[in-house]
Amino acid sequence: MWRSASEMSIPPVPRLAISVGEPAGIGPDLCALLARRPHGAELVAVADPNLLQARARARGMELILEPLVPDAPPQPQPAGRLKVLPVPLNAPVSPGKLDTANAGYVLEALSRCVRGCQSGTFAALVTGPLHKGVINDAGTAFSGHTEFLALLTGGHPVMMLAAPGLRVALVTTHLPLRSVADAITPERLETVTRILHRDLTVRFRLTDPRILVCGLNPHAGEGGHLGREEIEVIEPVLARLRQQGLNLVGPLPADTLFTPKNLQGADAVLAMYHDQGLPVLKHLGFGRAVNITLGLPVVRTSVDHGTALDLAGSGPVDPSSLEAAVTTAIEMTRGEV
Amino acid sequence: MWRSASEMSIPPVPRLAISVGEPAGIGPDLCALLARRPHGAELVAVADPNLLQARARARGMELILEPLVPDAPPQPQPAGRLKVLPVPLNAPVSPGKLDTANAGYVLEALSRCVRGCQSGTFAALVTGPLHKGVINDAGTAFSGHTEFLALLTGGHPVMMLAAPGLRVALVTTHLPLRSVADAITPERLETVTRILHRDLTVRFRLTDPRILVCGLNPHAGEGGHLGREEIEVIEPVLARLRQQGLNLVGPLPADTLFTPKNLQGADAVLAMYHDQGLPVLKHLGFGRAVNITLGLPVVRTSVDHGTALDLAGSGPVDPSSLEAAVTTAIEMTRGEV
Repeated sequence: MWRSASEMSIPPVPRLAISVGEPAGIGPDLCALLARRPHGAELVAVADPNLLQARARARGMELILEPLVPDAPPQPQPAGRLKVLPVPLNAPVSPGKLDTANAGYVLEALSRCVRGCQSGTFAALVTGPLHKGVINDAGTAFSGHTEFLALLTGGHPVMMLAAPGLRVALVTTHLPLRSVADAITPERLETVTRILHRDLTVRFRLTDPRILVCGLNPHAGEGGHLGREEIEVIEPVLARLRQQGLNLVGPLPADTLFTPKNLQGADAVLAMYHDQGLPVLKHLGFGRAVNITLGLPVVRTSVDHGTALDLAGSGPVDPSSLEAAVTTAIEMTRGEV
Repeated sequence: MWRSASEMSIPPVPRLAISVGEPAGIGPDLCALLARRPHGAELVAVADPNLLQARARARGMELILEPLVPDAPPQPQPAGRLKVLPVPLNAPVSPGKLDTANAGYVLEALSRCVRGCQSGTFAALVTGPLHKGVINDAGTAFSGHTEFLALLTGGHPVMMLAAPGLRVALVTTHLPLRSVADAITPERLETVTRILHRDLTVRFRLTDPRILVCGLNPHAGEGGHLGREEIEVIEPVLARLRQQGLNLVGPLPADTLFTPKNLQGADAVLAMYHDQGLPVLKHLGFGRAVNITLGLPVVRTSVDHGTALDLAGSGPVDPSSLEAAVTTAIEMTRGEV
């Protein structure tokens, strides 16, 4: 794995919304670090500009913020500068200290990003880490970025993680393990597989993308001896989709599917559940992995780590995942033209 | 990961039984290839000598077989030679062609290996790949090497796979995914964890082995939001065992546990189920991974691949996994003295 999206001859400059996420976490730090080098896109931090400046100063960095001009054509981002779409904090922030008073700020900033994507101001959304707990503690039921975006946009989200050389999409995501088998319905499997195929084709410009599909059970059920979902659910769905031209291999035993030899020539792996697909992906990609939401009307990529509250403002932080999320978002927006 | 077992000053020469496995598969080929280089143990193929000679000839290799002399002290194996404990085939073998007539031969050879381990003739058993289907087709209910060995020896088998830098043991093994959550009982978890700790100490001579324990659910249940088995089953068992001095970390989210940084300083990972632990292990170790059965009164290691019927007799085969299984068995026997 894998084929890369081919370059266009004159790539347009996309404008990306950067949702900074939890203000007490490392999101503002990462944004400041992101601005240290130039980018081939206009990067717009959707955040309180004072928060970004304070965090840059705390790290001894110079950061020049310029207001977003939505009607101007997007310009590549020079080093040391970021565009900003200001959203004021509700309360002052101390790095590392969660405050329910700013939960509304986080959601408002995220909503502004999404509205900007829907209106065409932004070509894509890149999200920093937020903290689910403090949003729930503030009284808003919130199960995650992905679900919130689906609610705002009406899409059917499919979670895919990408690391150099491997893409893994999930049929089910944040479910207790005992609920997984019943959640692998023909409808869900077909929907997710179609979205994965379509978005690999449209967003990643892959021709006839080859998808390796995991079984649900160990050894992919071993002919029914270790579970019958492969025979009763997965194989019939794959057979139907193959007849419609999808390039699907499987269901395959997950333990041998991920060997480097078997991954050759594959564009993505479709895993049935979270801990079947993500340990390998994060093992080989940690720090450079990108979380991509497929199936939405907006392009969204995200960092693959949490808020790291203890590092905000001063600790050693690595912007590699945010950099990778920006790079992937740029690639995906080029797939749309 | 990981600390290696330290060398003794004057290591004894162990005698290992090599169970060749399915005669129509690549097991005999691998045995012949194994003999190409010298070994620090006496290697005894428990098989029909004509089968081994025929397979060596088919590959244009010279192989000298010498009868086992059980009462003589074991001698390191020189290149080009193997000891043999003859067990006659029931029917002639064509490479690649399964024959139920030889299912009894496979089980008899395996039983001879186990009896030899129990009597002290062999210090350990290294198994080649067998074919479950043909044994079942021949009328013997057979769910796998591990279960068969447990039946013969009365042990409680724990499956552990090892690759360079990583050991992964499993609480449950070949179960349909929908049965996994209910199979994670306090009793089973405690038994498996104790066996893992004991065998790392005794067989691998690790002092205070550090074991990372996966949660059952994604994100290790995320404080109960994604399943309660961590709170109700896993944490209480780990707390009890920690009080008794076991060095246990977890339950940890499986997707981040396997990142190289988090594996530092760990001697083994305990995964709750097959496809949670083995994709990473096989991704990084395929071809060099060893399957180790802990918890038995005999030391047993095994190749980590199947019979590869299509390659028997002439195709390209790689003895690395069998070599690694021999090396690991030697290490483990030294741990016993």
